[in-house]
Amino acid sequence: MLLAKQISIVYFLKLIKWDVMAVFLYACLVGAMDYLTFFKELTIPLSVSAMIGTLLSLLLAFRTSQSYERWWEARVIWGAIVNDSRTLIRQLIQFIPNDSQKTDYVKQFAIRQSIWCYALAEGLRKCPPTQKVEQYMQQLGADSDNRPNLLLSKHAEQLALLSDQYDINANKQVQLDSTIQRLTDAMGRCERIKNTVFPRSYSVLIHFLIYVLTTIFPFGLDDHHWAIEICLATMVPVLFIAIERTAILMQDPFENKPTDTPMTALSKTIERNLMEMAQMPAPEQASPIATFYLM
Amino acid sequence: MLLAKQISIVYFLKLIKWDVMAVFLYACLVGAMDYLTFFKELTIPLSVSAMIGTLLSLLLAFRTSQSYERWWEARVIWGAIVNDSRTLIRQLIQFIPNDSQKTDYVKQFAIRQSIWCYALAEGLRKCPPTQKVEQYMQQLGADSDNRPNLLLSKHAEQLALLSDQYDINANKQVQLDSTIQRLTDAMGRCERIKNTVFPRSYSVLIHFLIYVLTTIFPFGLDDHHWAIEICLATMVPVLFIAIERTAILMQDPFENKPTDTPMTALSKTIERNLMEMAQMPAPEQASPIATFYLM
Amino acid sequence: MLLAKQISIVYFLKLIKWDVMAVFLYACLVGAMDYLTFFKELTIPLSVSAMIGTLLSLLLAFRTSQSYERWWEARVIWGAIVNDSRTLIRQLIQFIPNDSQKTDYVKQFAIRQSIWCYALAEGLRKCPPTQKVEQYMQQLGADSDNRPNLLLSKHAEQLALLSDQYDINANKQVQLDSTIQRLTDAMGRCERIKNTVFPRSYSVLIHFLIYVLTTIFPFGLDDHHWAIEICLATMVPVLFIAIERTAILMQDPFENKPTDTPMTALSKTIERNLMEMAQMPAPEQASPIATFYLM
Amino acid sequence: MLLAKQISIVYFLKLIKWDVMAVFLYACLVGAMDYLTFFKELTIPLSVSAMIGTLLSLLLAFRTSQSYERWWEARVIWGAIVNDSRTLIRQLIQFIPNDSQKTDYVKQFAIRQSIWCYALAEGLRKCPPTQKVEQYMQQLGADSDNRPNLLLSKHAEQLALLSDQYDINANKQVQLDSTIQRLTDAMGRCERIKNTVFPRSYSVLIHFLIYVLTTIFPFGLDDHHWAIEICLATMVPVLFIAIERTAILMQDPFENKPTDTPMTALSKTIERNLMEMAQMPAPEQASPIATFYLM
Amino acid sequence: MLLAKQISIVYFLKLIKWDVMAVFLYACLVGAMDYLTFFKELTIPLSVSAMIGTLLSLLLAFRTSQSYERWWEARVIWGAIVNDSRTLIRQLIQFIPNDSQKTDYVKQFAIRQSIWCYALAEGLRKCPPTQKVEQYMQQLGADSDNRPNLLLSKHAEQLALLSDQYDINANKQVQLDSTIQRLTDAMGRCERIKNTVFPRSYSVLIHFLIYVLTTIFPFGLDDHHWAIEICLATMVPVLFIAIERTAILMQDPFENKPTDTPMTALSKTIERNLMEMAQMPAPEQASPIATFYLM
Repeated sequence: MLLAKQISIVYFLKLIKWDVMAVFLYACLVGAMDYLTFFKELTIPLSVSAMIGTLLSLLLAFRTSQSYERWWEARVIWGAIVNDSRTLIRQLIQFIPNDSQKTDYVKQFAIRQSIWCYALAEGLRKCPPTQKVEQYMQQLGADSDNRPNLLLSKHAEQLALLSDQYDINANKQVQLDSTIQRLTDAMGRCERIKNTVFPRSYSVLIHFLIYVLTTIFPFGLDDHHWAIEICLATMVPVLFIAIERTAILMQDPFENKPTDTPMTALSKTIERNLMEMAQMPAPEQASPIATFYLM
Repeated sequence: MLLAKQISIVYFLKLIKWDVMAVFLYACLVGAMDYLTFFKELTIPLSVSAMIGTLLSLLLAFRTSQSYERWWEARVIWGAIVNDSRTLIRQLIQFIPNDSQKTDYVKQFAIRQSIWCYALAEGLRKCPPTQKVEQYMQQLGADSDNRPNLLLSKHAEQLALLSDQYDINANKQVQLDSTIQRLTDAMGRCERIKNTVFPRSYSVLIHFLIYVLTTIFPFGLDDHHWAIEICLATMVPVLFIAIERTAILMQDPFENKPTDTPMTALSKTIERNLMEMAQMPAPEQASPIATFYLM
Repeated sequence: MLLAKQISIVYFLKLIKWDVMAVFLYACLVGAMDYLTFFKELTIPLSVSAMIGTLLSLLLAFRTSQSYERWWEARVIWGAIVNDSRTLIRQLIQFIPNDSQKTDYVKQFAIRQSIWCYALAEGLRKCPPTQKVEQYMQQLGADSDNRPNLLLSKHAEQLALLSDQYDINANKQVQLDSTIQRLTDAMGRCERIKNTVFPRSYSVLIHFLIYVLTTIFPFGLDDHHWAIEICLATMVPVLFIAIERTAILMQDPFENKPTDTPMTALSKTIERNLMEMAQMPAPEQASPIATFYLM
Repeated sequence: MLLAKQISIVYFLKLIKWDVMAVFLYACLVGAMDYLTFFKELTIPLSVSAMIGTLLSLLLAFRTSQSYERWWEARVIWGAIVNDSRTLIRQLIQFIPNDSQKTDYVKQFAIRQSIWCYALAEGLRKCPPTQKVEQYMQQLGADSDNRPNLLLSKHAEQLALLSDQYDINANKQVQLDSTIQRLTDAMGRCERIKNTVFPRSYSVLIHFLIYVLTTIFPFGLDDHHWAIEICLATMVPVLFIAIERTAILMQDPFENKPTDTPMTALSKTIERNLMEMAQMPAPEQASPIATFYLM
Repeated sequence: MLLAKQISIVYFLKLIKWDVMAVFLYACLVGAMDYLTFFKELTIPLSVSAMIGTLLSLLLAFRTSQSYERWWEARVIWGAIVNDSRTLIRQLIQFIPNDSQKTDYVKQFAIRQSIWCYALAEGLRKCPPTQKVEQYMQQLGADSDNRPNLLLSKHAEQLALLSDQYDINANKQVQLDSTIQRLTDAMGRCERIKNTVFPRSYSVLIHFLIYVLTTIFPFGLDDHHWAIEICLATMVPVLFIAIERTAILMQDPFENKPTDTPMTALSKTIERNLMEMAQMPAPEQASPIATFYLM
């Protein structure tokens, strides 16, 4: 579950410290230039800065909104994975006739589905695989670049076997197949978000606009005390940078960062639910890992 | 049903009173500083404040719009729950052959489905369970962390039994299964909204921007009477705060707050409809609970 | 069909006349105050008004856009009702084997479906029922709070009977059931829009902002002629009010107002189409009712 | 296919010439008034104009975006018609067993589906029917107000006959029925866009705002040469009008205007594809009709 | 896979160099005019420029957002193609009974599906066909204007044959048909994006507004040094142009440009996955082609 803990301010400040530094130095430089003989008389009206500020604000609004969409879509997909994992096991319980082996089969699917969730999370984060997954893959005696795809194939294979053994009605087979197809879709949608970088050109443009603003803004503040001027000339661009950084934090939801989709926690929840449904002992309660921020 | 009563203004004023106080004090402080020797001569042009105001307005527009989306999505999900509850009972009536036990079976589903709605609502609000739900769970002789999930499993189990007993065609079983799958999805989508906090960083940024604005705004109002100045310097930030608060009110639609999704009222409506369809005595008309605001 | 007649300007002016009056009086009052000894010297720079104006414009843009979405969704739902009504009758013609009674059965469904549309429209508008619907319900010998839901149950009952009589394949039964499920969904979505009030807090905020603007705006126009000042101080807030009123007009699409979804006209179109498909004499062409505006 | 030819500038200029004329005269009038004794001393600060300009810009952004959505939806629907027409014929080829008559039946469907596209396009554009469609309807010996609906009924009738003749499995019948249902939906969605006028009140408001702006704008330009003043006072409102006109051009995508959905070209493409699939001689390549603009 | 390499700045600068040049010359011209006798005294307040700047910013925000939507939709479609290609092969493995020929049949589908992806990519980019596709089409002994459509028909034909040979249940046939229908839809949606040009009128308007801004902007900067003036008068319009160019880069996602959807890389990934599933030797890892930018 995604807890409401606050992202540590320290983390965020660390993130933007080099930008702040750069803008501060740049503002000092421009401020100093403003006092040189040649540029002393120069004023660029604040309206020009305001015009660029409006343009920049609108671009940032677009950027923020698109990043949020990506982040939200990632969560919607993992929500769907939770639902479809539950649905898969529920359908198996409903469609396999009662006999001595049924519980075993359901358990096998429940375990494989849990491993699928962990493997998908690790694949997206490009983490080294946990012992749990590694162990399962060794038992399986097969491996692939794309482990979740392999596990779905294994689901399909076992379904084909069970359909023969129990003579399951084709309608029900097809209904189970639809659930696996939705899991395939969820996997593919995660890969799409992971592999599609947000267009760089918008970042380049926004950075360029911020530096233009930093350059012309101090010339509109002429007759003020130099300390105030540098302070304002640093602060205004930093505000814009902070907003862009927040957007960047959100735009890649599978990157092992504090604002990441909490895939490990969700996988634990799924595991617990499936174990309960398959009447196996539940693993310990999902607890937020200490070394990992949640936002 | 969601009635058109107005959220009490008092409730809203209570909500923002500490913010208003803080901004007022801060504005007095800054206003006082403005009259000190050192800062007296200082003016920061209003254009700078306006630039930050535009940025802030756009961020608030984004915030408002995303909060509204969450609130609306919550209502769409509960609308779908209303529809699918009706559809489930209608399908059972249509698909179970007429015999002496049919009415009993339909009643059992109608009651379990009503309890499912109440249990889901309580689980989302993290309220203590009502007597109705508690009683049903005791009769059932089973319990779980996730009661709605358990009840859907019970639906599925009874469907499997009925399918055997009446030899229901696999097509119809699958159609009923699809309805239960949609209810599983609705449950999962509610959990997703409940458990996904709106990214804190946007709130932090907005607050920071509001305080920056409160700081520099009074220095643009120099030659006015101090009372007017403090008044304006308090009012403008408070307007921004009020909009953010409204967004916060909307963003968590399952938190037992006045703008909450009226899940109890909707559950009562569902109960009434299902009872009517299953030809049972209807409970009293759903009436808005006095101690609960509706917005 | 929704004709392109223009909403009468008179209607709109009537709608906002009290607001205009109030703002005019308030502007006179503030204008008068501006000439009093104490406030005479006071000027509040227009930049402050502009900042509030920008905030207000963005809130109104959000408001306008959300109201439009509701209005459009209502029309999308009724468009889907048109499609699914046609589909239902087409499917019946295709799936019921040809015999002497077939035409009768199709006619019964066509009539019930038409009545369903009228009943849904009346229920949403909370109008007294028309004679047509009342007559049908009396013939039916059953009634309910929620007439459209009852009629869908009747559809389902008759489908179950026909399925037995003609031994209709389960696949086809399920396909017909899906059509009825989509009609259930359409009904539920209409109820959701009808019963979910647009959050009042946004209206309250917008009104508050408009009055703040009306208060501080005249103090930025100091050295002008008083007539011009009052004129401007009235006009600017009235523009904002007019936009909000337009949004309010759109946001409740089932309220028997000029911008209403033309449910009666659409129901007549559906009736005509279904009668033609069921080879019955068509009712007269749907004509816009004189006492009813169309926008 | 929608070619990338440019809408003729002449067409657009013709479209706005009366507006430009009106605004020019109005600007001259106001400019003249500005030189009269009474109003000479009057200045209305440009900030007021800017405030109204911002409001107007946001309304136009909303307008533009909604018009684009309608235009895009129309194209999405016709894209879906292309897909579903191909799917229908592909399914028939796959589901009808091979025998001597199969090719004939597929041809009949392919022709009827092509005619359906042409008839739908003509119905939406309210053009007189082309010879092709007219001829087909005469051969058919039946007619209706709503020809596309009639043709879909004919599809359904023939499907029922073929199902009997070849004893087609109910699953496949239902799959074909779903394709026809999607075509019904596409037809209904086109009708919805055609018959739902964009709310007039927004146009009225936008026009009103433009005239308010034209009135107060010149009073902010006092000390300039009169030619410049009239020039600016004409140009600024004309920019806003040009944007609104562009939105109006897009909002009705079935009106036989240059920005229309290229339904005739798409119908020809569909015809070619279907003829190829049904192994009939293809009609000549779809070529843009000379008298018709494409944007 | 879409790698995170940066679009070369050089590419972008090349793209806008003529615009920059034109604006620079135009700014010099206007700047020179500003020093002529007649126009010397003329000042157009910066507020007017700011008003046009706001309008332009909002139009660009709309433009940017719609272009991004098109680009994202293209990627969503290709994501769906990845998923549905995998699903098709998985379903075949699950639904065809095990015998000596099964592996061969699955291989044929896997190869045809890979070729379909390459052919679709080439068709959209209007590239000359690669040797791989050309070779396959020659082996096939059939060709068409629309190769992907032909290949899907071949899928359908072979499915019909296999259904006969193995007596595959109609439910499963229909499930396979649905997968092919989704591929048909994906193909049609790509064609729609490819063939629907973004409305030119918005580009024309934006360009016109930029030139208006370039014309009036320098008259608001009167008393500055001429070098600064020309510098500002060039820079501000160039910022707007750069944003528009970025939008244009995104809006046509199938044009063989750096920001293109990486269809070749995705096709290679699909090929590798399908070969693995069909137990064939995998082709070499997909590697970004050196002569092709990725953004």
